[in-house]
Amino acid sequence: MKSPTQHHYFLVSERRAVPSNCAMAHTSSNVQARLLEKVLSIVEHERLVSGIDETKKVVEFVHPEELKKLLQLAIQREGRSLEEIEQVLETVVRYSVKTQHPFFFNQLYGGIDEVALAGAWLTEALNTNQHTFEVAPVFTLVEHYVITRLVELFGWQEGDGIFSPGGSMSNMYAMVLARYKKNPEVKRLGMSAMKPLVAFTSDQSHYSIGKAASWIGLGMDNVVKVQTDSWGRMIPEALKEAVAAARARGCEPFFVLATSGTTVFGAFDPLDTLADVCRDENLWLHVDACWGGTAIISKKHRHLLQGIHRADSVAWNPHKMLGVPLQCSPFLMRHKGLLHECNAANATYLFQQDKFYDVSYDTGDKSIQCGRKVDAFKLYFLLTCHGMDEMERRVDAAFKAAEYLATQVAQRSEFRPVLGAAQGTNTCFWYIPPSLRQQQENAEWWQKVAKVAPRLKERLVRAGSFLVGYQPVPEKGLVNFFRMVNTCYPEPQLRHMDRLLDEMDSLGADL
Amino acid sequence: MKSPTQHHYFLVSERRAVPSNCAMAHTSSNVQARLLEKVLSIVEHERLVSGIDETKKVVEFVHPEELKKLLQLAIQREGRSLEEIEQVLETVVRYSVKTQHPFFFNQLYGGIDEVALAGAWLTEALNTNQHTFEVAPVFTLVEHYVITRLVELFGWQEGDGIFSPGGSMSNMYAMVLARYKKNPEVKRLGMSAMKPLVAFTSDQSHYSIGKAASWIGLGMDNVVKVQTDSWGRMIPEALKEAVAAARARGCEPFFVLATSGTTVFGAFDPLDTLADVCRDENLWLHVDACWGGTAIISKKHRHLLQGIHRADSVAWNPHKMLGVPLQCSPFLMRHKGLLHECNAANATYLFQQDKFYDVSYDTGDKSIQCGRKVDAFKLYFLLTCHGMDEMERRVDAAFKAAEYLATQVAQRSEFRPVLGAAQGTNTCFWYIPPSLRQQQENAEWWQKVAKVAPRLKERLVRAGSFLVGYQPVPEKGLVNFFRMVNTCYPEPQLRHMDRLLDEMDSLGADL
Repeated sequence: MKSPTQHHYFLVSERRAVPSNCAMAHTSSNVQARLLEKVLSIVEHERLVSGIDETKKVVEFVHPEELKKLLQLAIQREGRSLEEIEQVLETVVRYSVKTQHPFFFNQLYGGIDEVALAGAWLTEALNTNQHTFEVAPVFTLVEHYVITRLVELFGWQEGDGIFSPGGSMSNMYAMVLARYKKNPEVKRLGMSAMKPLVAFTSDQSHYSIGKAASWIGLGMDNVVKVQTDSWGRMIPEALKEAVAAARARGCEPFFVLATSGTTVFGAFDPLDTLADVCRDENLWLHVDACWGGTAIISKKHRHLLQGIHRADSVAWNPHKMLGVPLQCSPFLMRHKGLLHECNAANATYLFQQDKFYDVSYDTGDKSIQCGRKVDAFKLYFLLTCHGMDEMERRVDAAFKAAEYLATQVAQRSEFRPVLGAAQGTNTCFWYIPPSLRQQQENAEWWQKVAKVAPRLKERLVRAGSFLVGYQPVPEKGLVNFFRMVNTCYPEPQLRHMDRLLDEMDSLGADL
Repeated sequence: MKSPTQHHYFLVSERRAVPSNCAMAHTSSNVQARLLEKVLSIVEHERLVSGIDETKKVVEFVHPEELKKLLQLAIQREGRSLEEIEQVLETVVRYSVKTQHPFFFNQLYGGIDEVALAGAWLTEALNTNQHTFEVAPVFTLVEHYVITRLVELFGWQEGDGIFSPGGSMSNMYAMVLARYKKNPEVKRLGMSAMKPLVAFTSDQSHYSIGKAASWIGLGMDNVVKVQTDSWGRMIPEALKEAVAAARARGCEPFFVLATSGTTVFGAFDPLDTLADVCRDENLWLHVDACWGGTAIISKKHRHLLQGIHRADSVAWNPHKMLGVPLQCSPFLMRHKGLLHECNAANATYLFQQDKFYDVSYDTGDKSIQCGRKVDAFKLYFLLTCHGMDEMERRVDAAFKAAEYLATQVAQRSEFRPVLGAAQGTNTCFWYIPPSLRQQQENAEWWQKVAKVAPRLKERLVRAGSFLVGYQPVPEKGLVNFFRMVNTCYPEPQLRHMDRLLDEMDSLGADL
């Protein structure tokens, strides 16, 4: 309990009495934004948008129970003093993983560009809800403009789209639309009234398709996992066979989810050939390009997406490779009007038809959400400020770093590539510690290799030097290996790739 | 086209050469966060977190086509100069609706508290993804702590929950969980294998239940709209009858969505009685308390939620009434473990079981999303900084303003209350312009009244003086009326309520 005389933040008079130790010039002397200034000063001090110093740790790891004690989480009847509040902010930053660190390679996202963060901060401050032109005049037009440009970028003459809360939701949008196109009555009558539907995807696709199948009432068993080649790319012949087999057992195929940039291998499914199959079989082709879709920006690498203009829909996450803060997930589609038709509920309190402006700009009824964050502006702001040439340069640099890493992995005997080259910006490899080198590579040996990645990962985390992911791929008989990924921001340097391998070999020397 | 000598933002050397005209003291001289400083300066100048001046406009309305010209949206090969970039930010702010304005009453959200915005800005800057303890150590614990406290707040001994991207998604979570509890095989087999399920909700509930029914494969026709009383509250006897009727036609009732704080009337369904029905009929009781759940904070008003502790799940949106930036939507439930069981997909690349720390903290597999924004911290930060006493004071103030407005509406002959009192913080009323006063109130008269709200709304928008919503409620035979709503921030003043009515009567004098 605090003494009643202690200053609490919520008392406005006290707030204003606290002198600001930040020298920012105020345009209005009685305007206080002390805490916002504090956040800005933390961002600047920690260099969260301008490249964290490589000598700093990526993470200051402590175990959950210990971290609980350090955080002293508490919500009480009384508030906290300004000093305590600032301490909360500092502790949060201290123990948070620095995703902006040049050595954060743990997940399919990384640092964020200052421009994009500025866009995000502004939209947060404006607290706009993206449902009607009435309340979101600017951002409705921005979303419309960005969607139109992205539709062009992916090669469609016309189309539609919406920013969704993440790639998993975008994939679910696609499945729901494909089902509606197959049988519009499903919206009213549900799936109990329908023949069992079947969806197809590769055995390397993202797990969200299973979750989506569960949620939309399709059932996870009705997602057929199609075999991939040694690079993790869906085999079109195998898809054809799977479709035929499903028809033979009385089910109705409706949907193929192809992937451009799989989570682990970074594989790009052969879209053109898959589009042929989908055309012949009358199936909706959705491309989960959440990770690899960024290649569309690069003249050098967009061949990986060859055929994407023939897809019915595309999910892309600029928050992954492009340095836009989470969440930024445009879902795009070729069929104009279908999104509204499939999802509209025509709520009379929100989408009044007797408004005095052109209500075709009230796009919110296309969404499965009601309230919806503005996710389009930060992407628009990034692209308009930097320009597409700069974006292309960054994308090429990320790909180049991945290729360089793959070359080094192949050349250094302490490492063993999983694949013969990088795919997208993914490079997969094992570390072979000294005790396992030059031995017979039998089943027992691989069992030992399987234990290396978790142990080495632990050491990397405790050292705070690098964060990089690992996983097995049981369906290909592959034990735990590292998956390195490069994003555009902060820009990966070739020497960082060397340094990662050196660090692994140094920390793993006694394994 | 720009000349090649023009400064572009993305050229770091040029960036640093641009002198900052903001006097903020830098701890590190070469650290630049110029655009972030610009955003902060806009927030301070426009007073977005410290109460916009009442004399300023809520909106500077221009029609969509005209606004397009003003915005000059463009993404080009080249970037923009810093001057252009700053102009983009200023134009965006100028034409955006000021949801923080004390006279923004248009939707079920409003201004945002500086503390909550600081929390949001920090989480944006840290760019953390809420899926594992590994990458989100602090925020995983924060979410866990907040969920635990909210489970207590709503009166459960134990429970679980997750922050979802909005109330519509929370309602969908509830339906999916209820369906899974009724028949866990649905996850694998889908709904084609099941007896047709039926859900129940009131005719005043939010439209998201229909969208959810469509998406999860239940079908909109399998949502039965139960009759409400004159206040818009679900009639338990009518629910009982509807359940019996559904069973009689061979369907399987499984889910009741009750509402605490309906969108238009602000009605609170009688939860205790509905809980009796759900217990007797073995139905999942979900409470959509997105809007009205905030009453739980007030000793004076929490009686409206009497019985909520008997619900199976609750959706609450602190981003609506409490001044937390969008999105902040805890979904809460009584059944521990079910969320994970229903939604887990066990992706091996993300939720490795051979990690060196306690992986029970990797809570991401409970979610339908993969990447997930940190929405818990801004709420935690708001509550811990201000304390619950201050929150309670604010909630009571919002209710008080609504009650005051209802009294004024009843007393002033220019207005006609739709209901006899405010419900929650909603006050519903017609404006009766001079030309329609003291006339026979027949069908023709009501047809004329129906046209008043859209016309008056247009005038309010063009004047930029107030933003307030209107809608008809056809199922109750009610033509277009205004729906006033009060939120906690900025704190509504009683004189603002008078001013709204005065402004309406002034702008509507010739109608």
